[in-house]
Amino acid sequence: MVDIIEKKRDGEELSKEEIAFFIDGYTNETIPDYQVSALLMAIYFNGMTAEEQGHLTLAMVQSGDQIDLSAINGIKVDKHSTGGVGDTTTLILAPLVAACGVPVAKMSGRGLGHTGGTLDKLEAIEGFHIELTEDQFVKQVNELKLAVIGQSGNLTPADKKLYALRDVTATVNSIPLIASSIMSKKIAAGANAIVLDVKTGDGAFMKTIEDAEALANSMVAIGEQVGRHTMAVISDMSQPLGYAIGNALEVKEAIDTLKGEGPEDLTELCYVLGSKMIVAGGKAESEEEARQMLEAVIQDGSALELFGRMIEEQGGDSKIIHDPSLLAQADFQIEVPALKSGTISQMDADDIGVAAMMLGAGRATKEDTIDLAVGIVLTKKIGDAVVEGEPLAIIHSNNENVEKTISMLQNHIHITEEVQTKPALIIKAIG
Amino acid sequence: MVDIIEKKRDGEELSKEEIAFFIDGYTNETIPDYQVSALLMAIYFNGMTAEEQGHLTLAMVQSGDQIDLSAINGIKVDKHSTGGVGDTTTLILAPLVAACGVPVAKMSGRGLGHTGGTLDKLEAIEGFHIELTEDQFVKQVNELKLAVIGQSGNLTPADKKLYALRDVTATVNSIPLIASSIMSKKIAAGANAIVLDVKTGDGAFMKTIEDAEALANSMVAIGEQVGRHTMAVISDMSQPLGYAIGNALEVKEAIDTLKGEGPEDLTELCYVLGSKMIVAGGKAESEEEARQMLEAVIQDGSALELFGRMIEEQGGDSKIIHDPSLLAQADFQIEVPALKSGTISQMDADDIGVAAMMLGAGRATKEDTIDLAVGIVLTKKIGDAVVEGEPLAIIHSNNENVEKTISMLQNHIHITEEVQTKPALIIKAIG
Repeated sequence: MVDIIEKKRDGEELSKEEIAFFIDGYTNETIPDYQVSALLMAIYFNGMTAEEQGHLTLAMVQSGDQIDLSAINGIKVDKHSTGGVGDTTTLILAPLVAACGVPVAKMSGRGLGHTGGTLDKLEAIEGFHIELTEDQFVKQVNELKLAVIGQSGNLTPADKKLYALRDVTATVNSIPLIASSIMSKKIAAGANAIVLDVKTGDGAFMKTIEDAEALANSMVAIGEQVGRHTMAVISDMSQPLGYAIGNALEVKEAIDTLKGEGPEDLTELCYVLGSKMIVAGGKAESEEEARQMLEAVIQDGSALELFGRMIEEQGGDSKIIHDPSLLAQADFQIEVPALKSGTISQMDADDIGVAAMMLGAGRATKEDTIDLAVGIVLTKKIGDAVVEGEPLAIIHSNNENVEKTISMLQNHIHITEEVQTKPALIIKAIG
Repeated sequence: MVDIIEKKRDGEELSKEEIAFFIDGYTNETIPDYQVSALLMAIYFNGMTAEEQGHLTLAMVQSGDQIDLSAINGIKVDKHSTGGVGDTTTLILAPLVAACGVPVAKMSGRGLGHTGGTLDKLEAIEGFHIELTEDQFVKQVNELKLAVIGQSGNLTPADKKLYALRDVTATVNSIPLIASSIMSKKIAAGANAIVLDVKTGDGAFMKTIEDAEALANSMVAIGEQVGRHTMAVISDMSQPLGYAIGNALEVKEAIDTLKGEGPEDLTELCYVLGSKMIVAGGKAESEEEARQMLEAVIQDGSALELFGRMIEEQGGDSKIIHDPSLLAQADFQIEVPALKSGTISQMDADDIGVAAMMLGAGRATKEDTIDLAVGIVLTKKIGDAVVEGEPLAIIHSNNENVEKTISMLQNHIHITEEVQTKPALIIKAIG
């Protein structure tokens, strides 16, 4: 192991065998934490080639269970977002793409952050259960083309151990380590093709376009190296996506979008990612053709109907797709008035997300419980005009005392007198 | 601790408090190995400023006992060599400098390597014991100006822990870490001034002059920062120092040198280092004056006599200073014949040292026992002429079968037909 650390420290490339030796040894606890953390720091400084990242990813995949989706007919396409504020795309994309004939066998997580993960959002629908046996899961996808469940099995234990170690050794922010961590989870989950939404800007993990592009390139290269067709889109997270930030609030926004009445940016992102998924799934020749299919399943209501059928199949109350007021509702809806007139110039996505988390919409630690009803619904986006006193956002809270949240939002939604252009949503597509 | 790792990872300077926090926490086992190894690797890449190295050194000094030499009259000057092949200087310098009136209260070690450490060499003198109580030590130095003993007390435990961790995490070769490790041990040992012999070349830890100079500069800066006057000499270790490599053999060579009959290079190095020690000890105004004092105590026999008195005081048989054949003798003395005529162009010091270790002169691991009698005595140095069949060296062995050692030496003592200049012994003086 010392030789392996030394090699990486000196900027040399590790072989497949060396990477497998270190991952196996770490998983089996024959290689101690302190050697692995030294290696991680050397990787932080010297990076990894595409080949090394591919070997690392596969070694982590092989450290645990792998989901076998071969009993599901067709090309299985998964989607992953690197995370942002108000990102409801999975809830929309899954039925949208499935309605176009691409099987969506999705395992989602809960996670920490401003709001819950996809599973938390789905649990805002009364009765919805996220646990299916493997047989039930396969059967439902073969029948409906659609199921979203919680992760089962012991997937990528090496990644879990490594991530915990990185977290306490200042080696989280390493693009090759982030890329192989994400890709190992996606590959172990069994999809044939993967579409990645890499977000950049204040509300994203990757603050700069350069970093987002490097991460996207790494992940696409890993995917191709291990034989999973992988594409990435770099999208803007300088402001929250859509208007809603909060679990039940985002489910409502997803339903609106499936009806064709969603926010412009969220709808567009779903079209862009969805087109790639449909082409990857072999159901369209071009992204233009795929986009027309997506528009059609929104217009004829079949995507929304499929979402309803999935909810019903998984025990939930599908009436919410026609009456979102059946979702959990907060006791108070409080306006956040603009302190002056002008144009919205900047929305600090990260701080707005923290404001939602403080209301109870997200978890800071694994032990925190989420209030599914609470959150923030923005009424403006960058470039929109605003008049003094007009609401910038509506706070949904179960506590009347939200002075602090109001002033946070007033501080982090910036108003200027100059003309503002809206930021571009899609920055680049890779692969 | 994560913040500290992150700061160093990002190339920022750590404060005194941050360094103390990490050393204290590591010593007390409240900070785990895996965080420390990540920090060490970040230091490997980003280095440390002189201030950081000073703080690290002092924090390691304060992690354990510190020797109090204040009961010894005068300015106490210590000397340290970074280690090479055939380096007998301590045995010569200690009595030489003491004979000029500078108190030498030296704690030495055993260590791993081609031959034993100073303590092993002294134990080649029958009866010599290296353990004195603190009172005996102080009393002897006040009376004789000279004592050489083994390290006692719990000096720099933080350095011991760090060194063990560096050894298994590929972070040994970091100049700030090497410099603070050496200096912490010297400072804890209590001297007022420190003269360093930093060796460079094939037989040294620092293979290049640049690295040796960087290490010397770091150590001098640390010394000055913590208020200990520190000087360094960079000396050549492209070939073994002197002729003898082996414990009893080096004691004999030390005695020869104290008589004025030693090898030219070893004698010169003792004059250079000794002059600095005498000036630092306040016994001469200039190095020229000090050198004359050193030459005088060799010529009048007082340095050799003092060595004899120390041996006697510490229980050894002082008759060896007049009859070195009383030292341990190997059973066999076997010549290594030159395979061709010419001039010695290169002596691979490291390989020649390994040949001595294989005979039993040194330890590869702490558990190995040393054969004090065995070793190699070279008969030639770089630039010397040699005739085919003439001995290049004499092997002192307790085993008649030394074919392997003979061919190792023949391979690593290179003979050329061109004229060769002798390498300069003293490359640079710093501080």
